[in-house]
Amino acid sequence: MDIKNVSKKQLERYPLYLKYLLSLDETHIENVSSPMIARTLELTEEQVRKDLQIVTKKEGKPREGRKVKELIEDLEQFLGYNEISEAIIVGVGHLGQAFMKYKGFLSFGLKVVAGFDIDPNLVGTMINEKPVYHVDKIKEIIPHLNCQIAIVTTPSDVSQEIVNTLIESGIEAIWNFTPIHLDVPKDIVVENVNLASSLAVLSHKLKRKNMKEI
Amino acid sequence: MDIKNVSKKQLERYPLYLKYLLSLDETHIENVSSPMIARTLELTEEQVRKDLQIVTKKEGKPREGRKVKELIEDLEQFLGYNEISEAIIVGVGHLGQAFMKYKGFLSFGLKVVAGFDIDPNLVGTMINEKPVYHVDKIKEIIPHLNCQIAIVTTPSDVSQEIVNTLIESGIEAIWNFTPIHLDVPKDIVVENVNLASSLAVLSHKLKRKNMKEI
Repeated sequence: MDIKNVSKKQLERYPLYLKYLLSLDETHIENVSSPMIARTLELTEEQVRKDLQIVTKKEGKPREGRKVKELIEDLEQFLGYNEISEAIIVGVGHLGQAFMKYKGFLSFGLKVVAGFDIDPNLVGTMINEKPVYHVDKIKEIIPHLNCQIAIVTTPSDVSQEIVNTLIESGIEAIWNFTPIHLDVPKDIVVENVNLASSLAVLSHKLKRKNMKEI
Repeated sequence: MDIKNVSKKQLERYPLYLKYLLSLDETHIENVSSPMIARTLELTEEQVRKDLQIVTKKEGKPREGRKVKELIEDLEQFLGYNEISEAIIVGVGHLGQAFMKYKGFLSFGLKVVAGFDIDPNLVGTMINEKPVYHVDKIKEIIPHLNCQIAIVTTPSDVSQEIVNTLIESGIEAIWNFTPIHLDVPKDIVVENVNLASSLAVLSHKLKRKNMKEI
């Protein structure tokens, strides 16, 4: 697969296309046009066309549009859902446990293989058949795993220190669920999911809406 | 508080400022300058100055900078962390349960008051002292709650239908954790947290990095 220059916004849209196409396929719809996708996902036709050109070599036909099944395959291929990447979770609190139990990650090509925490009630147990180790064992255990990705859901006051240890142990990508800015070397990949930031956007929009309605 | 024109990117940064200032306050640092904030959070000084001007009327002083405690107060005020908004959760699976148990939401001004699901093992139980009702009761129960926000963590094939019911019941803001595009009336607020999209960005960056290293 070519690794082309794709923007973050585009990358974020591909799972939405895929989800929509899978729903069409479930109801046995065989063909789809760019305008139809654009309307449903509230995008412009140009966005859809440009986005799809990156993931598929097949052109849509004037009347039929594109084959739903082919497009699904191309999107899954592009998103790497068929090659499984292994990941560990650091911080096995409520969110970390939810992620250890969540079966959906596997359909996105992500397999959680272990968790790390400091809670003596968790360390040494299995959650969804995955072992939970003490965080002190990170440096010892990670080199034995085939794992580039760490999902970080620790309390935020320890996350920078933990992330330093993860990087020293060979982790190359951090999926950061803590609400702090992580300081990492340039060659380390960080993707942030900041619930506080997302909630700030939601609250602000709601406040504006309430102001208008008064 | 004035509701000014604030961009989404700006709104997303405020919780990061707050988190950083709280960490300074914990180590008894009393003053902070915009350049210092910019360096730590890897932003430009201009961004920091513009962002802070929106939330505080106080100017930073040339040598001292700004008072950390005052800035924390102004940010918490701006983010509405002192006025509690009530929310319900629809879909009490792994993620929904984690959110029902998560204490952090309260510090962001969000109080989860109830959950809705279809699982007979969950309906009628309490999770973290919050009742779980059957989704069939949404229309009956929501009008009795003082609640504008719904956190949606249902399976994606039912989320559009559930969201329609939520809106008919008076919900005005949807925090959508399902990986689909929701079709809602213009006056309804939707904020999406799409883990599949976030993972797509992370995987792509990691793939590019691995290609370069070969």
